Amino acid sequence: MVERFKHLSPPARLLLGPGPSMVHPRVLQAMSLPLIGHLDPEFLKIMDDIQQMLRQLFRTRNPLTIPISGTGSAGMEAALVNAVEPGDTVVIGVNGVFGARMAAIVDRCGAKSIRVEAPWGRIIEPASIEAALVQYAPVKAVAIVHAETSTGVDQPLQEIGVLCRRYRALFIVDAVTSLGGMPVNVDGWGIDLCYSGTQKCLSCPPGLAPLTVGERALAAMRARKSPCPSWYFDLALIADYWVSAKRVYHHTAPISMLYGLREALRVIDEEGAAARFARHQVNSAALTAGLRALGCEPVADEAHRLTTLHCVAVPAGVDEAAVRTALLHEYGIEIGGGLGPFQGKVWRIGLMGESSTRANVWSLLSALDNLFLAKGWVERAGLALEAASRAYSEETGHK
Amino acid sequence: MVERFKHLSPPARLLLGPGPSMVHPRVLQAMSLPLIGHLDPEFLKIMDDIQQMLRQLFRTRNPLTIPISGTGSAGMEAALVNAVEPGDTVVIGVNGVFGARMAAIVDRCGAKSIRVEAPWGRIIEPASIEAALVQYAPVKAVAIVHAETSTGVDQPLQEIGVLCRRYRALFIVDAVTSLGGMPVNVDGWGIDLCYSGTQKCLSCPPGLAPLTVGERALAAMRARKSPCPSWYFDLALIADYWVSAKRVYHHTAPISMLYGLREALRVIDEEGAAARFARHQVNSAALTAGLRALGCEPVADEAHRLTTLHCVAVPAGVDEAAVRTALLHEYGIEIGGGLGPFQGKVWRIGLMGESSTRANVWSLLSALDNLFLAKGWVERAGLALEAASRAYSEETGHK
Repeated sequence: MVERFKHLSPPARLLLGPGPSMVHPRVLQAMSLPLIGHLDPEFLKIMDDIQQMLRQLFRTRNPLTIPISGTGSAGMEAALVNAVEPGDTVVIGVNGVFGARMAAIVDRCGAKSIRVEAPWGRIIEPASIEAALVQYAPVKAVAIVHAETSTGVDQPLQEIGVLCRRYRALFIVDAVTSLGGMPVNVDGWGIDLCYSGTQKCLSCPPGLAPLTVGERALAAMRARKSPCPSWYFDLALIADYWVSAKRVYHHTAPISMLYGLREALRVIDEEGAAARFARHQVNSAALTAGLRALGCEPVADEAHRLTTLHCVAVPAGVDEAAVRTALLHEYGIEIGGGLGPFQGKVWRIGLMGESSTRANVWSLLSALDNLFLAKGWVERAGLALEAASRAYSEETGHK
Repeated sequence: MVERFKHLSPPARLLLGPGPSMVHPRVLQAMSLPLIGHLDPEFLKIMDDIQQMLRQLFRTRNPLTIPISGTGSAGMEAALVNAVEPGDTVVIGVNGVFGARMAAIVDRCGAKSIRVEAPWGRIIEPASIEAALVQYAPVKAVAIVHAETSTGVDQPLQEIGVLCRRYRALFIVDAVTSLGGMPVNVDGWGIDLCYSGTQKCLSCPPGLAPLTVGERALAAMRARKSPCPSWYFDLALIADYWVSAKRVYHHTAPISMLYGLREALRVIDEEGAAARFARHQVNSAALTAGLRALGCEPVADEAHRLTTLHCVAVPAGVDEAAVRTALLHEYGIEIGGGLGPFQGKVWRIGLMGESSTRANVWSLLSALDNLFLAKGWVERAGLALEAASRAYSEETGHK
């Protein structure tokens, strides 16, 4: 027996970047259970449980509510290639990396993407969407990102949902960084297609993309003139396996990932949505206060700031990459850098799912306090911790 | 705390169907390790190890040798949507479900699929491929399945590889049910694009599709007139993350699945290819002898019979579905039924990776012996076990 590759031994990391987030031990344990077949009657029950818990989380009655067998970006691709046909016009909100990615996929579908842009860090104004709906009518769909992972912006959706009904456009929403960490209300907000990823607020490893499809979107898919360009992501075929009583084999389901997702959803179900969202809110407020005390201002304005992903400007004179490297190698803490035009200018700090705890906020802020003090970027120790402490007191009402 | 969904507790199963196969405990353990980020320097080393071991298994020097973030069918789609453009002509061997699936994907690419058909259970004759290469010249690619999971046929590839060079067509091979269980020689057989799945002979859970891309295929991709229709499967973007020194973020890698794949490849590396293929050969011969003693004849002729997946005809008078149900519920053993025209007519029995052991052969054959005897389908007990025992003696030279 020759052993040429070392025993797998990943270092301990506190994951506070834009994903993956920390995973509950119960989820890791579920992933290590022995496999059963993807057509085993016992597996079909697991699939049913997952669908039921996903519907609850998406707040929808859509029968077609399933995890796509790929990462969050696979969910984006699945939503768009099924809904959009060559020649369609699609209005896309672009105020960060992920809106731009939606537009790129729409272009590859042979459709016309109309980019409604806003500066990075700002929301897309519903009035701009309406102007595009009027100017480019008929519009097949409006696609927008709920929680922009590249900027930390919380995009209001309800008004755009109303506009989509009024102008008979499908409403497609990217909930990758929101689902499970803040309210997502698919039926209440008139969303026709919504997808997410498992590695953010669901605190499950990356590899699955929860997706829900409403009746208007299904009708549009049934009315397609050309087949869906993707066989792997063809929702009609996938629904025959996941939803229809026939359970027709399409592709071999990723069994272990689905074990993990079921357990992650069960953990969420036990905590309850209200408690979970409140936890994200409180820890986010404390983190933001602490970062501000170090001179790190959020990019998004207060009314539209995510509680799951914090994008803050790196203060002038601070070495952005050196801080991230020191956090990773000296403290075992991962945070993210900026993407695209934000490269070198911001940090992206996730407090998503299991990562959103007081202990983690303290760990990160005290590490930053230390690093900033050692470099002379702050005048005295404890600034961030004091600010966070005050914020926790205010948030929880115990002054 | 409300617990509305039961603790996850899948039943113990012996997986002897067409996949997933049994998974080594070390692989399950690896999948339960805490996560690190997909851009963590330590994770990049894990990616490098995986690539190196995959190259060894595929027998290739191709730098672009990676796992696609989806199941085996995602590997098929990734290979085809990158290699094939609208208007191209692609010759496809169709003698089972998976050849037909390739043709369906090629059609969705807007290309012309030329189906070179053979009856289910027979190989595609190289002469038929050559005739199509001549008749439909110029042909962009020839696509064929190495190990047809729907029929148990082992397709010879070397001669077709020579033809592809002669007629300047790309050679695309589906090695889903062969890689890791029998020889696959990408460079030696002139294969330009080859993909597999993790849940068969690699004995890793389903969810990843190993893929290798040679220089001729890369040149064809670079020369495309239209962009790859899939953003998620665009190999140029994926290579920027997996292969280029820049490690440009594309999508969040499925960390835990990659932990599992690395360990599965390490298990394979330790056993060694020759020993592993010999193990599959011996257990396959014994299983086949045992099944024959029960009147279950292989569909494929002896010269082209897989050692990884056994497709055998159900004898007249035997209740196909009842046997599978009894195996699953009374013995905890999963085997597969037939697909398409073979539905109700064959069983598909996998001895892939960790599933290919003497103990498993004995378990299945003794269960079948029992079931057949109880129903009066055989005259006396022990027929299958005696035949398998003789086969083992012959195979191992100890008579």
